[in-house]
This record gives sequence, C-alpha cells and structure tokens, in this order.
Amino acid sequence: MIERLVLPEVRELLEADDLETLGAVLNRWPPADVAGIVAALGDDDRAKVFRALEGKVATGTFEYLELSCQERLLTSFDDPKAAAILEEMAPDDRTALLEELPGEVTARLLALLSPGQRAVAVALLQYAPDSIGRLMTPDFVAVRKEWTLRHVLDHVRTHGKDSETLNVLYVVDQANTLLDDLRIRNVLLAPLHTRVGDIMDGKFVALRVTDDKTSAVEVFRKYDRTALPVIDSGGKLVGIVTIDDVLDVAEEAATREIQRFGGLEALDEPYLATPLVALVRKRASWLIILFVGEMLTATAMGYFEAEIARAVVLALFVPLIISSGGNSGSQAATLIIRALALGEVKLEDWWIVLRRELASGLLLGTILGTIGFVRIALWSAFSDLYGPHWALIGLTVAFSLLGIVLWGTLSGSMLPFLLRRLGFDPATSSAPFVATLVDVTGLIIYFTVALVILRGTLL
Amino acid sequence: MIERLVLPEVRELLEADDLETLGAVLNRWPPADVAGIVAALGDDDRAKVFRALEGKVATGTFEYLELSCQERLLTSFDDPKAAAILEEMAPDDRTALLEELPGEVTARLLALLSPGQRAVAVALLQYAPDSIGRLMTPDFVAVRKEWTLRHVLDHVRTHGKDSETLNVLYVVDQANTLLDDLRIRNVLLAPLHTRVGDIMDGKFVALRVTDDKTSAVEVFRKYDRTALPVIDSGGKLVGIVTIDDVLDVAEEAATREIQRFGGLEALDEPYLATPLVALVRKRASWLIILFVGEMLTATAMGYFEAEIARAVVLALFVPLIISSGGNSGSQAATLIIRALALGEVKLEDWWIVLRRELASGLLLGTILGTIGFVRIALWSAFSDLYGPHWALIGLTVAFSLLGIVLWGTLSGSMLPFLLRRLGFDPATSSAPFVATLVDVTGLIIYFTVALVILRGTLL
Repeated sequence: MIERLVLPEVRELLEADDLETLGAVLNRWPPADVAGIVAALGDDDRAKVFRALEGKVATGTFEYLELSCQERLLTSFDDPKAAAILEEMAPDDRTALLEELPGEVTARLLALLSPGQRAVAVALLQYAPDSIGRLMTPDFVAVRKEWTLRHVLDHVRTHGKDSETLNVLYVVDQANTLLDDLRIRNVLLAPLHTRVGDIMDGKFVALRVTDDKTSAVEVFRKYDRTALPVIDSGGKLVGIVTIDDVLDVAEEAATREIQRFGGLEALDEPYLATPLVALVRKRASWLIILFVGEMLTATAMGYFEAEIARAVVLALFVPLIISSGGNSGSQAATLIIRALALGEVKLEDWWIVLRRELASGLLLGTILGTIGFVRIALWSAFSDLYGPHWALIGLTVAFSLLGIVLWGTLSGSMLPFLLRRLGFDPATSSAPFVATLVDVTGLIIYFTVALVILRGTLL
Repeated sequence: MIERLVLPEVRELLEADDLETLGAVLNRWPPADVAGIVAALGDDDRAKVFRALEGKVATGTFEYLELSCQERLLTSFDDPKAAAILEEMAPDDRTALLEELPGEVTARLLALLSPGQRAVAVALLQYAPDSIGRLMTPDFVAVRKEWTLRHVLDHVRTHGKDSETLNVLYVVDQANTLLDDLRIRNVLLAPLHTRVGDIMDGKFVALRVTDDKTSAVEVFRKYDRTALPVIDSGGKLVGIVTIDDVLDVAEEAATREIQRFGGLEALDEPYLATPLVALVRKRASWLIILFVGEMLTATAMGYFEAEIARAVVLALFVPLIISSGGNSGSQAATLIIRALALGEVKLEDWWIVLRRELASGLLLGTILGTIGFVRIALWSAFSDLYGPHWALIGLTVAFSLLGIVLWGTLSGSMLPFLLRRLGFDPATSSAPFVATLVDVTGLIIYFTVALVILRGTLL
C-alpha cells in the first residue's frame, strides 16, 4: 500500500536524477517496501534506484523481488555491483535465482563470487531442482552438547551474524551428526550455567536433502516450527530451511493445483510475465486433449441420429442434461482431490467416500430431476412446445438427470482415487476430464432412458 | 508416518489397559506425533490415551488435534481434566476451540478457568469471528527502550516462560504503545551492555486487531516474519500472531478458493467430518443455480427446433461445441482469478489482459476449429454420415468453434474483473458460471453461423 502512496515522489526524484535524496528516503525503509516500489518501476528506473541504495538495503530489496525482475536487473548491473549483491544474498534465494538463469550466465556469475561463497553456491546447485536441497541455506549455528548456555550465547554473539535464523540452534557431534534442535526459547529460559545436554530432549524432526520441496510444507504445518534442519542420508546436518521460504512453496503449490483444476498446465510464472506463446501452448495441450475426447459425443449422438430425427424435442435437453452431469462431477472431483491433497482422506477411505457419494448423488439427482420435471410441466401448462406427450418427456428428463448426476458424482469422486492409486497426481485436469467422461456417457444414459420411456409413443 | 507404524502396539496396550507402559512410551514423543495417533483412534480410546499423558504432553497433543476431535474429547473429560487442559492451552488455540462450541458449553468451560485466564479468554472472544483478534495470543515479551540487553535477557529468563514465541520481542513505552519489534537475532548479536534504544530501527510492521484474518497471510509473506505484533486503533500493543497459525489460515483459504472454483460452497470442515446433510446442501445450492441458468439452453435450442428438424446433423455437434467454449472459459477464468488473488494482476490491468486473451482466444479457437474441420473431412472420406454437404458442415463447426472459444476466453477472463469491480469475490463459482454463460450464448453463436453458411443447402 505504502508503495502506491510514495510512487509519484519517487518518480519525480528519478526524473530529476536526485539519487542522493532518493537514497536518504529509501534506505530508511523496510526492504520489502522498497522492493514494492522497485517492482512498480520500468527497467531503467529500477537500475537507478539500485544505484541509490546502500549495500545491505540493496541486497535485502533485491531478495524480495520476483525472479524475473531479479534476472533483468542483474544483467543491467556491472560486474562489481552484481558480485556484491550475489555475495551478500542468502544462499537459498541465490540458488533460486541462479537456477533460473541460462547456464552460461550462471557460470559467469559464479566466477564473480568469492571462493567460499562459490563453493556454497555450486554445492546447492547440485541438488535436484525440486528437492529440499534447493531450498536450504547452509548458514546456521551449530553447538555442542557439553557447552554451557553462557558459552552458547557467547558463540552466537560472535559466530551467529550470517545465520539465516537464530530462532533455532542445532546440536551436533564431532562428526556433524545432528543430535537435536534447540529452540532459542529453551536456551533463553534456562539458567546460564546449564549445559546444552541438560535441555536437550532428543525430539527433533529433520528434512532429508533429497526429499521433494512440497513435503516440507506438510512437515512445517504439522510440527509448527519456524525452521527445520536438513540432513543427508548419513544423518549429517547440511543446512536448514526456514518457514518464510515454505510459505512461498505452499502458495506456488496451491497455484499449480488450482491451474490444473482449471484444465491447463501450471504456468510456473505470473500470468503477465508468461509470454503469449507459452500461455497458449500450456492451454492448447489440454484443450486439444479434452476436445478430442469430447469428439466422442458427436459419435455417441450419431448413434442416436434416427431417434433425434423422430423426436427433435429430445435434442433440446441435451446441453441441460450433460452440463448437470459435468457440474456434479466437478464438484465431487474438487472435494476429493483437495481432501486427498490435504491428507484428510486417504487411499483406503475410498469405500467410505463411495457410500457417501452414492447417497449425495441420489439426493442431488432427485432434486435436479424434480426441478426438471416441474419445469417441463409448467411450460406445457402454458404452451404446446413439448406436445401431448409432455409428461413422458418430463419423466425421461427427470430419470436421466437422476442417473447422470449420480454417475457424475460417483465417477468424479472415484477417478481421483484411481489416478492416485496408479501413481498420477489426481489434480491434473481431473475436473474437466470428469466433465468430458460424463458428457459422453451422459448422452448414452439419456438416449437409453428415452428409448425405454418413449417407446411406442414418440420413438 | 510414525503413527501408522506404532498404531498396532498402541492398540494392544489400550486393550490390555496398560496405561502405565503407554504413558512411558507416548510421553517421550513430540506432541504432534502423539496427536497423529490419537486422531487414528476411536472416541473411547482417545479419552484413555489422555489419561496416560502427562500435563504438558496432554495439552500439547490436544492443541494439535482437529477442532471436531477436540470438541468430542472435551465433553468426555471430567471438569478438573478439562479445566487443566484449557488453562494451559495457548490462548489463540483456545479461542478457536471455544468459538466452535455451543454457547452454553463455552460459558460452563469459561467458569472452570482461573480468573486471569478467564479474563484473557473472554477478551479474545469479543473480537469478530474472522478478525486478527481471534488469531492472536496476548502472551509476548515486552521490553523498554532504556533497558540494556543484559537486562532484557534476564527479563526474558524470568518472564518469558508463557510467551508464545521468543523469536521476537516488543519495545513499548509506559502507555503500552508499540515502538518497535526486536528480532531475537539482533539482541543476541549485540554486546550485553548495549541499550535497546541503540538497536531499535523503528521499522516495524503491525497488524490491526480488527483486520481480516486472511490479510495476515499477505503481510507475513511480504515481510518474511515469524511473528507480527497486533495493535488496536490507538497503536497499543494487544497481542501477537505467529506464523504457524497463519500457515493454517493460508491453507484454509486455498481450500475455500478451490472449492468455490469447483462450483460449490466452501465446506469449512474436512470432507469426512462434514455431515452428509451439510455436504448435500452446500453442493445443491450452486448445482440448482447452475441448473436453472442452464435451462436457458433448452429455451435457446427451442428457438432453433425447426432448423434441427431440417438438419439433424447439426444436433450431433452441440455437446462438442459448447463444451469447448466451457473449457476455454474455465481456463481463462482460473488464470485470472488466481492472478487477481495473488495480486499479480490488478483491477486496472484489465485492458492488458483483454488484449492478451483476445490473441489467445483467436489462436486457441483457430487450433480447435482446424481440428474440428479435419475430423469431419476425415469421417466423410470413409463414410456418408455427414452427407454431400460435409464441407459446409465442417466450415460451420470450424467457425462456430473459433467464435465460441474466443467468446469463452474473453468472458472467462473479463468476468472476474467485473465481479471484483462490483465488490464480489471473483472466486465464487466463476468457472462453472462462465461455463453456463458460454453454453447458452454458444448455442446462439453455433446456430447463427449455421444459418449463414447452410442457408440454401441444408437449411
């Protein structure tokens, strides 16, 4: 909010090239707010602002910017400026930036770093792209079991400056094996002569460096921690992950999930930052798959062409009936996919879900079927649109709706279980996929019901 | 995971009524894991486990349970047990539980609390249900500007025990006005004789007690904090909110958003914990609204009944064409709603979005239209299904697809802007609403195109 208020003033100072005043103003602000201003400016002005910022504020601000914005800024900096910022950046944020850049740019930038930071950066880049390793920072404070808390606090005061967090300290042995994590609250609350070993409880939760990023979200939620240690396969402490990074991972995961729900490939970039070609490509693939699947409706309708020719009135309700199946199917799919993602429902619960959805589907189908029949009865009371057999047509529509809503609900709720069981992510376009499936089968249900009820009258 | 492994052993101990051994095992574990076990048991066994747990572990475990599970457990406890647990619970978790219970139960439980905790609980319950006030805890450590850091650390050691977090301390004046927040890292890194005033930077971000819960998520994301102070309208410090509570708020918000996307009211409870009646009610309302809207398709089709009777072949493509419009519409709606929710796209960007979606819609429509034409041409090469005028039918389908995909894309992307502009939440059933809108208008587009292209041949 604050960004919007001062933006005109910042623009004026930039136009007047008064970087001194600008620096005096911006350097007093929280980097997150300065980043908000920078994000609202054009590329040239952004580079100018960075000339006005002091070292610490510059790095802090830079860390808060979107990756795409960081990329463009970095190419506009001269080497010493780029080196200064990269050198000071938190290793986890730096990894995220370096992995976005083209290989040759990354190589050039790595060469600008000091040998120590270069080793850190290279080590982190060796982990798989979606692993915890890419999310962690090796800057933490490790202490020993036999130290007193006074020693710990002195150690923190002299060695803690670069640590990403001091909210949690880590107890390791000589071989760097993780023994426990120590919340700073326990250190601060105990008398100074207490030994670390005496306040250790041996209860700790650690992430594995090769695990998937998203698994960290679950662990943070479950254990209510602000930082978690990361260990390698030998139990050695290699880094920590802090909750602020995980909040971003959680939000990205939710975005991907929502976009897959909407029937398209996850963009992985903000909407406006996605090039038009990528935007169309990610939508076209699923749109084409669904279109090809939906072609089966034309085939299914083709089988009943003779019936439609004899009773054109049947065609009028086709969109109404198949969309009701589609809607009830996506409702069910949405509920179950989300419940599976949150762990509220497990694979082995499919039987409980099936019974609940059977009941839900029958109820929902009866409601829609009744409304459908009433609608046709009402229209027929005032017009001759549906002819003398309106009651039979009404029954056809009502029973078809019952069947299709029930079928939509059941397939919508069971398909996610099936996909999960087969090892796929149930979120991937389940809802539109269910809609397509229900469209095709819905037509068959509708015309079959019609053949049974209308035989001898209209058909 | 650990829960699943030991569950059989826990069940055996419960059957043998060996609460001593059970206590010896469970009291050594992290409360989050004990809660995982409790959640997997039946109501009677849950109460038994709580008899085996020590005071601190019992409260910790209780805090990690789902609200519905807490409710049922609480009613199974006798008054002293219930009082002991409520007395020790973090005030924010306790508020969440008390607001779920029926009024008379809350009143009875409040009476069990000590006068001090009762005052705290009553004060928190006075804030609006979805406000920050309901999320905060009044347990924090406040320090004064003129204190030395040695004094601060002594104060923390003696007074910090009940504080929800010691990761951040708060500087206030005599009137309790918030002056600054102090990360514990800055306290730990400075020499002990430094005064608080010397390490204050006056840069702090505070939440307002009456603000909406979900606004906290944005602030936490933006400023990367683990705790934020909460102030009243006079700038007085009244409590703090910690990030673990916000992670839950963020996840609940994502669930609500996803469920609204799926075309149903948000459940607000886990799927399996939602009673069947509520489950059906929350789905039926939107299903009926969409059904009534979709009835317009029958009306629209009614207008073209004569055309369908003359060229039944037109009816065959109705499901294919309207579903393509619906799919492209929900894709666009999904993208824009999520981008609006994340702030990636702002209301004033509608014009940029319109141009991008115009281009996307034209491209996607051309792709689907081409596939549709090719499909009809191929079928006609091998069969006589579409008669001698297959090329004209193919053109009708192709141009209709172009028009409908373009229209779906445009209405799907613009409707969220319109809803947001009118003060509604764009997420509420936008995607299925767009699909219904596009279904009705899609039919009109299709038959109009058919009238133009097929006049003189089939029509």
